[in-house]
Amino acid sequence: MKQSLGARTLLYTHPVVVIGTYDRDGKPNVMTAAWAGICCSSPPCVAVSLQKPRHTYGNIRETKAFTVSIPSEDYLKEADYFGMVSGKEADKFAASGLTPVKGTAVNAPYIGEFPVVLECTLLHSFELGLHTQFVGEILDVKVDEAVLGTDGRPEMARVRPIVYDSARQEYYGIGRLLGKAFSAGRAVKG
Amino acid sequence: MKQSLGARTLLYTHPVVVIGTYDRDGKPNVMTAAWAGICCSSPPCVAVSLQKPRHTYGNIRETKAFTVSIPSEDYLKEADYFGMVSGKEADKFAASGLTPVKGTAVNAPYIGEFPVVLECTLLHSFELGLHTQFVGEILDVKVDEAVLGTDGRPEMARVRPIVYDSARQEYYGIGRLLGKAFSAGRAVKG
Repeated sequence: MKQSLGARTLLYTHPVVVIGTYDRDGKPNVMTAAWAGICCSSPPCVAVSLQKPRHTYGNIRETKAFTVSIPSEDYLKEADYFGMVSGKEADKFAASGLTPVKGTAVNAPYIGEFPVVLECTLLHSFELGLHTQFVGEILDVKVDEAVLGTDGRPEMARVRPIVYDSARQEYYGIGRLLGKAFSAGRAVKG
Repeated sequence: MKQSLGARTLLYTHPVVVIGTYDRDGKPNVMTAAWAGICCSSPPCVAVSLQKPRHTYGNIRETKAFTVSIPSEDYLKEADYFGMVSGKEADKFAASGLTPVKGTAVNAPYIGEFPVVLECTLLHSFELGLHTQFVGEILDVKVDEAVLGTDGRPEMARVRPIVYDSARQEYYGIGRLLGKAFSAGRAVKG
């Protein structure tokens, strides 16, 4: 039996990503977001949604560039902090002790300690209501060599990304491998 | 040390969602997608990206409505199957034995057996390249009573959603609770 919860932003699962930008003076800032996802394969694009008052919003408008850094479980408290405080009031890199690294493909900083980074140039911005969606073309993906398997591809168990539960405002880790895509379904296909 | 993997659609984490639509004759269809995410809080909106050849693409254009059903781990093989076969060639509901249920808020079917469902009306469509992004306003969220905690909110351990690893085309379950959002970061904030 299903129960109606009304019109709300519930989804499973939400990612936890940290958006990196420079302001007009070249000062790096980061903020955490969960309203994000890949939105196109070619060109490869990622979408992140921000509210106008966010410091990052103005920075993306100014520089037309941003990075998406993926925190591992080890950086849960920093990732949460980056979503709690505005870059207008705090130097989040200084407070956290993490390292801003200038992207090689775009004019935006990423977090050196995080295992996976997307460098993006702004392609589109769409006004949706409370949030503006920024679509960035992914010009490069950088990963820590430590998260690569022997086949040169990242391994989930090494990246150890974080999932956000918006129903309860909680963070979860990744669990067990359930199956291979485009394979598990053959049992249904017959 | 970071290694460059080039321009590609890598992100952690991707959701696994199943998009439900009717065709012009009222026949229900579903397809699985990972290029999806919440994109606005008010109005509450979810974005799903589809390629033009998809049967679902034409259905959304036609009906201006879709649902997003979230599979639990129990329906991994069905969710994978729904991404392997086109609704132009197969009756995926018949093949899987799952139940199409007409939405109460929109003219689109959801999967009765899946624990969480979003009913959406088409607000925007954006041409991004290989993919078109459809932004749906979430008019209602329905959840199985069995996934609700005693406080009336869904519990992650009961929903048991699936995460997609695009680097290896694999599915994962959810792991352990890591911490509370807007709380864990206080350790940094001081």
